[in-house]
Amino acid sequence: MSQSATGPARGAGFTSFTPPARILMGPGPSDVHERVLAAMARPTVGHLDPAFVAMMEELKELLRYAFQTSNAVTFPVSGPGSVGMETCFVNLVEPGDTVVVCRNGVFGGRMLENVTRCGGLPVVVDDDWGAPVSLDKVEEALRAHPEASLVGFVQAETSTGAHTDPRPLVALAHAHDCLAVVDAVTAVGGVPVGVDEWGADAVYTGTQKCLSCPPGLSPVTFGERAVARVKARTSPCQSWFMDLGLQLGYWASGSRTYHHTAPVNALYGLHEALLMLREEGLEAAWERHRRNHLLLAAGLEDLGLGLLVAEEHRLPQLNMVVVPEGVDEAAVRAHLLNEAGIEIGAGLGALAGKVWRVGLMGYASREENVSACLAALRAALAAQGRTV
Amino acid sequence: MSQSATGPARGAGFTSFTPPARILMGPGPSDVHERVLAAMARPTVGHLDPAFVAMMEELKELLRYAFQTSNAVTFPVSGPGSVGMETCFVNLVEPGDTVVVCRNGVFGGRMLENVTRCGGLPVVVDDDWGAPVSLDKVEEALRAHPEASLVGFVQAETSTGAHTDPRPLVALAHAHDCLAVVDAVTAVGGVPVGVDEWGADAVYTGTQKCLSCPPGLSPVTFGERAVARVKARTSPCQSWFMDLGLQLGYWASGSRTYHHTAPVNALYGLHEALLMLREEGLEAAWERHRRNHLLLAAGLEDLGLGLLVAEEHRLPQLNMVVVPEGVDEAAVRAHLLNEAGIEIGAGLGALAGKVWRVGLMGYASREENVSACLAALRAALAAQGRTV
Repeated sequence: MSQSATGPARGAGFTSFTPPARILMGPGPSDVHERVLAAMARPTVGHLDPAFVAMMEELKELLRYAFQTSNAVTFPVSGPGSVGMETCFVNLVEPGDTVVVCRNGVFGGRMLENVTRCGGLPVVVDDDWGAPVSLDKVEEALRAHPEASLVGFVQAETSTGAHTDPRPLVALAHAHDCLAVVDAVTAVGGVPVGVDEWGADAVYTGTQKCLSCPPGLSPVTFGERAVARVKARTSPCQSWFMDLGLQLGYWASGSRTYHHTAPVNALYGLHEALLMLREEGLEAAWERHRRNHLLLAAGLEDLGLGLLVAEEHRLPQLNMVVVPEGVDEAAVRAHLLNEAGIEIGAGLGALAGKVWRVGLMGYASREENVSACLAALRAALAAQGRTV
Repeated sequence: MSQSATGPARGAGFTSFTPPARILMGPGPSDVHERVLAAMARPTVGHLDPAFVAMMEELKELLRYAFQTSNAVTFPVSGPGSVGMETCFVNLVEPGDTVVVCRNGVFGGRMLENVTRCGGLPVVVDDDWGAPVSLDKVEEALRAHPEASLVGFVQAETSTGAHTDPRPLVALAHAHDCLAVVDAVTAVGGVPVGVDEWGADAVYTGTQKCLSCPPGLSPVTFGERAVARVKARTSPCQSWFMDLGLQLGYWASGSRTYHHTAPVNALYGLHEALLMLREEGLEAAWERHRRNHLLLAAGLEDLGLGLLVAEEHRLPQLNMVVVPEGVDEAAVRAHLLNEAGIEIGAGLGALAGKVWRVGLMGYASREENVSACLAALRAALAAQGRTV
């Protein structure tokens, strides 16, 4: 214990961090309600405390409501959405498995990365960025690959703003003896998600989109077929942390075998956010997202701005606004941030520089935010000599 | 959008969660200071917000202070300590690599699980639970396995309360051309950690021990040799989320290539906790942990209670109290929790039922907590007819 703390006086002179005032209208995180922030600031208790364990049981039940499922295996993975995604693939894919991956944006591409790293043999079904996944192409892929065991696709592509209806895709996967994995990260709370109605086998989401919770957790739900697939594995899951068997020992009711230490305060926040969703009701939340999206779309039209995605495939919670020819897109975002405290997102991947991503997610989906954003966009365009 | 939210009225009737008042004196999480809780409740901002990016730079600098390193690659992994551990192994072990794993408790065993799942060939060096890692045995293993490329061990075994001095083990690993990975989850902030002084190649820690932050993040630091090893890999990292190359694109100064969405509010909390550690000073924190440990040990002796670990190897922040013959250990823990609001930990693995784990970690390492715990232990033993 005689060691001295040497080295430069690192960190000296720093002070507490005070975040600037923002309205979060990007692709996530979205605005977090005061109730959720307050919940996270409650005193930390032990992750095996009986009171905490009881809260976790409520949290799982609230998640079942949000996912619209009665799946027993429904819990929040202790990591951001990408860990939820990886949890699905490392458990459901074994080396040599053929997996149909639908790629119509960045997150389908991430699924592909996951499948490859699990030793799976991917069959990629590509669709245009901004378009939904094509049922016909998936069917063609499944016919060409009768050995396929899994189909993965994204319901709400956060990189393109396109919505894909999971119901027919899940049915198609099942008709070809495949499990269906659905990325619902940006979907849950913003558009209808019905895990049981679809019959989806594994679905994951994030907290920082339409659940309006800070980022860092990824709720997942696994149906009976998926659990059976995991139990029938002939090779161990390559990840210790994401191994569903170990995760379940920790999260299953009446179990609580130590696996890792749950992020206690983040879970307080998620519990409160889900409670607020329950209080509002899913249908009311979907309708609110739809209504504010229509308001925004109308206002954008007044500004002469178009949306990338065809009307029938638009996600109400994430609007891909096409950057007009000759407009400096980064300058517009900087204007919104610096002059109005409004964060909107840049385009990702193939859409970088071509679109703005305007989120109306969760608590951020409010009429006053739509107005503020439209006014700020008008001013930002005017600052570039574009008056409408 | 015509779907209706069917199913039972799940979650109806639940209310906001109010945690009970606790003093956290188990193996973690430890008590969290009001300043850290308040920091986490500040409004969420975007993870690419310039203000947030600047905060992350400070956070990395504060972590370098806590680790006592100038390693450029020092950042918090967005997951609990076990994800930090897995991040080290999935990046530094390739299939077929021989890895010496030192196992003197649960967490050495977890390292072994990680090595195996990465396709590594483990050489296990076992030591008694409660004893430190034996330098001689490790040397023997390294002589017998000149092909070994990595040595992994735990500095502060949270399951046994034993401290292993990393310095000679790191030197030994280097003498045999191996990298050294050190688990410092329970160590950082409680006992001297000097990553640069040791020359350790990869070290990970947790936030919920002596840093007194809620669980959910795992700071890691990689030295130049470790980064070179990662760059020289011939096979891709099996994990997409934990791939150091991708993580670095996100965390490196001046980079910020989108990888995942950082847990914004949890990072506010870690920034504040590290700032408090910086204000107190590492040496003062180590001394405080030592002082309160000695107080506790003396009080335990008065109660006729012994400690599992030999005096010279005891972790001041985690005291393994031997359960006396005939005492109902679970009843004592329940008594402390229900009558005094004090959480202490049960034994883990081979020590289940045989010890209590009394933590004096971070903000919980205070004289008044020592007194409260001793008084509560006295009362709990008296309730079982044991008066001293």
